[in-house]
Amino acid sequence: MDECKLVILGFGAVGQGFARAVLMKKEFIKEKYGVGLKIVAVADSSSSAICADGLAEEELLKSKAISGKVGSYPDCGSDLTGTDLLDAVDYDILIEATPTNIQTAEPAKSLTLKAFAHGKDVVTSNKGHLALFYKELIEAKEAAGVEFKFEASVGGAMPIINLCQENLASCGISSIKGILNGTTNYILSRMTSEGTSYENTLNEAQHLGIAETDPTQDVEGIDAACKVVILANSVLGIDATYSDVEVRGISNVTLEAIELAKEEGYYVKLIGEVSKNNLKVSPRLVKQNSQFAIDGTLNLATVTTDLADEITVMGKGAGSLETASAMLSDLISIIKNK
Amino acid sequence: MDECKLVILGFGAVGQGFARAVLMKKEFIKEKYGVGLKIVAVADSSSSAICADGLAEEELLKSKAISGKVGSYPDCGSDLTGTDLLDAVDYDILIEATPTNIQTAEPAKSLTLKAFAHGKDVVTSNKGHLALFYKELIEAKEAAGVEFKFEASVGGAMPIINLCQENLASCGISSIKGILNGTTNYILSRMTSEGTSYENTLNEAQHLGIAETDPTQDVEGIDAACKVVILANSVLGIDATYSDVEVRGISNVTLEAIELAKEEGYYVKLIGEVSKNNLKVSPRLVKQNSQFAIDGTLNLATVTTDLADEITVMGKGAGSLETASAMLSDLISIIKNK
Repeated sequence: MDECKLVILGFGAVGQGFARAVLMKKEFIKEKYGVGLKIVAVADSSSSAICADGLAEEELLKSKAISGKVGSYPDCGSDLTGTDLLDAVDYDILIEATPTNIQTAEPAKSLTLKAFAHGKDVVTSNKGHLALFYKELIEAKEAAGVEFKFEASVGGAMPIINLCQENLASCGISSIKGILNGTTNYILSRMTSEGTSYENTLNEAQHLGIAETDPTQDVEGIDAACKVVILANSVLGIDATYSDVEVRGISNVTLEAIELAKEEGYYVKLIGEVSKNNLKVSPRLVKQNSQFAIDGTLNLATVTTDLADEITVMGKGAGSLETASAMLSDLISIIKNK
Repeated sequence: MDECKLVILGFGAVGQGFARAVLMKKEFIKEKYGVGLKIVAVADSSSSAICADGLAEEELLKSKAISGKVGSYPDCGSDLTGTDLLDAVDYDILIEATPTNIQTAEPAKSLTLKAFAHGKDVVTSNKGHLALFYKELIEAKEAAGVEFKFEASVGGAMPIINLCQENLASCGISSIKGILNGTTNYILSRMTSEGTSYENTLNEAQHLGIAETDPTQDVEGIDAACKVVILANSVLGIDATYSDVEVRGISNVTLEAIELAKEEGYYVKLIGEVSKNNLKVSPRLVKQNSQFAIDGTLNLATVTTDLADEITVMGKGAGSLETASAMLSDLISIIKNK
């Protein structure tokens, strides 16, 4: 493979981060792996830019920034989006970066299955389809004989899925326990260090852009629960779906509970737990000198294995370029094997 | 490849751990990857056991335990060792687990080059040849068109080399900073928590088997410096050798220095630093709430990247089965590509 034609579907923070990452790294990738990356189509929810000769990453970012629509890209604008776009263009790999939808998993599910039907590889950052339809997706991928990589769906830049599947390939993994949501970790850390209430700290996080205007997905543990399901399926081989996870968020965690814990040498953290008999997200006490006592928006996961004992990994759980870096590493692992 | 014939050279803690790991995992590997592992020869420094039909892992471990020589294996004993053994047997992959020799890199260097000359892949836990002759080894490996994997040489079970080369393949890595030696971390941690002198704590560590009778390699920073060189070459692409590392160990760290640091919110840790202009091992102050404030024999490394910001990984830096797990994961990555 000398050239790899990419379609990016979803052009929010992650999709734009991916375009930036391609811009930064395409020469390096060409030199090291002998493959030129070419973005042939990009769509947001209402428009697209399509060009078989390749779209310029800088122009894509500029068009989106100025008009809010990637379809304002000069001379390449189109109304085609979604599966219609995939049917219309010639591509090698789908970069699926649409927003997570934990009710229907759409449009990610349809887009992914369409790409598989085309015999194309998919790299995704989406959690919805993986949390709701993991088994169906993997079966479709196997039937199509293509690659499906989703490191970015759990923990952003924190390498955990490929780490377990590849670097720890010799090990049986019995459990994963971790801080899988940066927003809630930020809120709990600030409540602990500043002695502020949940409501005030959430407001602060929203003001800083760390929490969304509707923070439900994060603070109620939904986001972390999706990640628990993805790890259960992809690493522990458990056939689980979102409804199998016991979920409790942080909206009822009081300052009093945090301060009481602190006096006794503990912090309150939103912990995701993955093991054969336990899929759970809940506020838990962690010792102040344990690895789980991390501040800010970091993510962390400890993997318990049979041969290697415990392995812990930590990294930025969100961020446009950080999440895109995991997608680009997934892309490289695909093109290396072509 | 239906069957993979292994030669294990070096049958100390790591070599024996590898045999145990094969015993535990060969059925799993056969089922998952369709490849049967067969150990056809094992040598320690003065004897060997050789059998083209395969040696039984339990019998290998028993023979070594009872007589101290693997050559006491019933009906398969031999005087052949080293490169002579490699010339005499039919094998696919060399598992190189001889002791690290930082003066001459032997026998690891000759064994590895011999295997390359045979067109065979090598998995090693050895640091000496990688720290002294990295470039020569990689050139020989490239010329032979074989695989050469050495995750176990740095940080035992802690995944760091493959993590950087594969999981972070999209990222430029500017530096690695870490606790790369478990023995010195144990000694410094105990001096800090117990208020004991360096000499007494070293004695304790020797009594527990954490430090060796001659602790020089660990306490003088030599072991950590080897790892710094290996990371510099394999991850940062710096053409460095052992003599390029500025090394200071912990034998001059006083209890007074540790206690003074503690009062100010710091711990003293032996830190390895790897960047373009800085290859160094030295006792450093780390903040008590930083990721470097880990106790016991754990290893930890923080990788600074351009796209993914900082990624940190932690795991057991030593241990027979733990180190073997890294070698077995390396072996799996080779057989997967066959």
